[in-house]
Amino acid sequence: MKKYNISVIKGDGIGPEIIDEAIKVLDTVAGACDFTLEYKEYLMGGIAIDETGVPLPDETVTGVLASDACLFGAIGGEKWDTLPRELRPETGLLNFREKMGVYANLRPAIVYDELLNASTLKPEVIKGCDIMVVRELIGGIYFGKPRENDGQKAFNTMVYTKDEIIRIGKQAFEFAMKRDKRVCSVDKANVLEVSQLWRDTMEEVAKDYPEVELSHMYVDNAAMQLVRNPKQFDVIVTGNIFGDILSDTASMVVGSIGLLPSASTGDKTAIYEPIHGSAPDIAGQGIANPIATIESAAMMLRYSLGEEKAADMISNAIKNVLKDGYRTKDLAAYDAKEVVTTAEMGDIIANYI
Amino acid sequence: MKKYNISVIKGDGIGPEIIDEAIKVLDTVAGACDFTLEYKEYLMGGIAIDETGVPLPDETVTGVLASDACLFGAIGGEKWDTLPRELRPETGLLNFREKMGVYANLRPAIVYDELLNASTLKPEVIKGCDIMVVRELIGGIYFGKPRENDGQKAFNTMVYTKDEIIRIGKQAFEFAMKRDKRVCSVDKANVLEVSQLWRDTMEEVAKDYPEVELSHMYVDNAAMQLVRNPKQFDVIVTGNIFGDILSDTASMVVGSIGLLPSASTGDKTAIYEPIHGSAPDIAGQGIANPIATIESAAMMLRYSLGEEKAADMISNAIKNVLKDGYRTKDLAAYDAKEVVTTAEMGDIIANYI
Ligand SMILES: CC(C)[C@H](C(=O)O)[C@@H](O)C(=O)O
Ligand SMILES: CC(C)[C@H](C(=O)O)[C@@H](O)C(=O)O
Repeated sequence: MKKYNISVIKGDGIGPEIIDEAIKVLDTVAGACDFTLEYKEYLMGGIAIDETGVPLPDETVTGVLASDACLFGAIGGEKWDTLPRELRPETGLLNFREKMGVYANLRPAIVYDELLNASTLKPEVIKGCDIMVVRELIGGIYFGKPRENDGQKAFNTMVYTKDEIIRIGKQAFEFAMKRDKRVCSVDKANVLEVSQLWRDTMEEVAKDYPEVELSHMYVDNAAMQLVRNPKQFDVIVTGNIFGDILSDTASMVVGSIGLLPSASTGDKTAIYEPIHGSAPDIAGQGIANPIATIESAAMMLRYSLGEEKAADMISNAIKNVLKDGYRTKDLAAYDAKEVVTTAEMGDIIANYI
Repeated sequence: MKKYNISVIKGDGIGPEIIDEAIKVLDTVAGACDFTLEYKEYLMGGIAIDETGVPLPDETVTGVLASDACLFGAIGGEKWDTLPRELRPETGLLNFREKMGVYANLRPAIVYDELLNASTLKPEVIKGCDIMVVRELIGGIYFGKPRENDGQKAFNTMVYTKDEIIRIGKQAFEFAMKRDKRVCSVDKANVLEVSQLWRDTMEEVAKDYPEVELSHMYVDNAAMQLVRNPKQFDVIVTGNIFGDILSDTASMVVGSIGLLPSASTGDKTAIYEPIHGSAPDIAGQGIANPIATIESAAMMLRYSLGEEKAADMISNAIKNVLKDGYRTKDLAAYDAKEVVTTAEMGDIIANYI
């Protein structure tokens, strides 16, 4: 029987609750598909600061690198927001991404027919929407040097090399090949030199994918188009900070950020996590929506473990659970037949498998 | 009788058509309010490239600096997109902003009850929405140095000095004092040093405005919140590139970008222009919506010329024209009683005054 080693980072706030449900569902599907998953927990974020003094202990890095994939909850909280920058949970997260080499952040934004009304956008605008945002995750202004703040003047550097752009571009085109064969590259080439290199390089990458249609859009227009007509997009590829903004905008198209999974992949261990945060305000109350995390677990099966069938089983179970009207509190207003707790939602999805 | 000197830049695409309607309305209101406006035209953008070889002729800079205010149409078009960067219309625009010292870009996003349905957002989400986006316009990554693209690696610099932040911060707080007394400052302080200085400085500025409530939001969350619940915002203040993205997002809350005016103000001549572009595809057909430009002219009366009464007359006329169901083609689907041309819309608004 196949066995996979999964590193687990529960993190802060609702992190532990939602991860527990994902593991419940993963074990069920593993049983059904004849493989086993072995989990090992590591610390990161606020809890790591509290227990070890640093947001990203070395042990976590080594442990995750040695695993087949990493399942990640959420980190951070007000409690740690006033620490010096190098000790904050976010700094730990950025270092973690860099050390894992996860240059591609994949954020599918798929509108469930069952939850058409959960978006603030009109149903006819979003029905059938299926976007894959491919965000560059370990370059750009997040990591660019020099960077400084002397209290009177501060600056950061937005930088990309051609190789970095080629690498993320290829990912986007590969995805497009399996989808509707359209890539929209988002930049600000009318103003920024770094965007001009981005645009020129995407054109070069496109030459290797003659079947895929490449278009370019300025970031301000892309933000607008995501609200005006999100269905026009298939794959969106963009840099780190533009991707940060646009993938959150895209999540609003879907409506509930409690539904949206993500994968961060590169040359080493990939990381799977919900796109929402640690929501300390609702932690421990059993009302968090575990679906984004469970769907992230499905992405893990699909992309890191090659267990496509198991992944599909999870995705289908989620769809059916939503169709049958089970909702956590965040979605109670949208065609709910029964409002359930975090743990009950995990149970129900596991039962549907 | 008071006389004002207005510099006029019609620009490219639909620029000339919409400016003509704004002038029509301005003259009507001037007649009614006992002042006169003298207009002088200057070249910029594509037409300037065609006629003089450069996107921003010196004459334009001198002429606008000598005027009381500048009314601006729109510039750019595919025709000039392949020129070297220093000769492109956008480069002319950025140089123009810098030379005019217009550090504050004001973009009101007000939802008209008459056009509640024009947005892709649900009516109940946007009804009553009234946001003022205050975008820093001559700093940040748009102008930061060093900047370079050697074909293998490219970078830009996002930079702010404390003085620049104080200056734009004050503008935002002054606006808030005349409004709902709430400022939301948007940054990415969890990642960027330049944002940390931004945030700390906003806190300092806030001390001089004890009546105003200051909050901070990360840019990714702000993009999301503008779609999720735009009514939560009063004044938003942010840097150049974040403001570029967020003000376009805010415009989608309102729905039609044919309605949205802007002012760019600083220590010298202020510039008033619609937020939409030159739309070369519909130029010359008499279907462009001139309302954003006419409303920009109203902002000019209000902020640069101190003719509040005249400004209110224009804004009220626009509201009534919309209430009575007159629509240009772009808004024909939204409760139109009569679909009119660009020039007819100008006539009708002038008549209502
Ligand atoms: C927490 C923050 C550093 C992070 C980012 O900006 O990348 C988050 O917003 C995300 O998108 O994962
Ligand atoms: C045309 C472009 C340079 C400009 C900008 O990015 O500032 C435009 O998008 C705007 O918002 O006025």
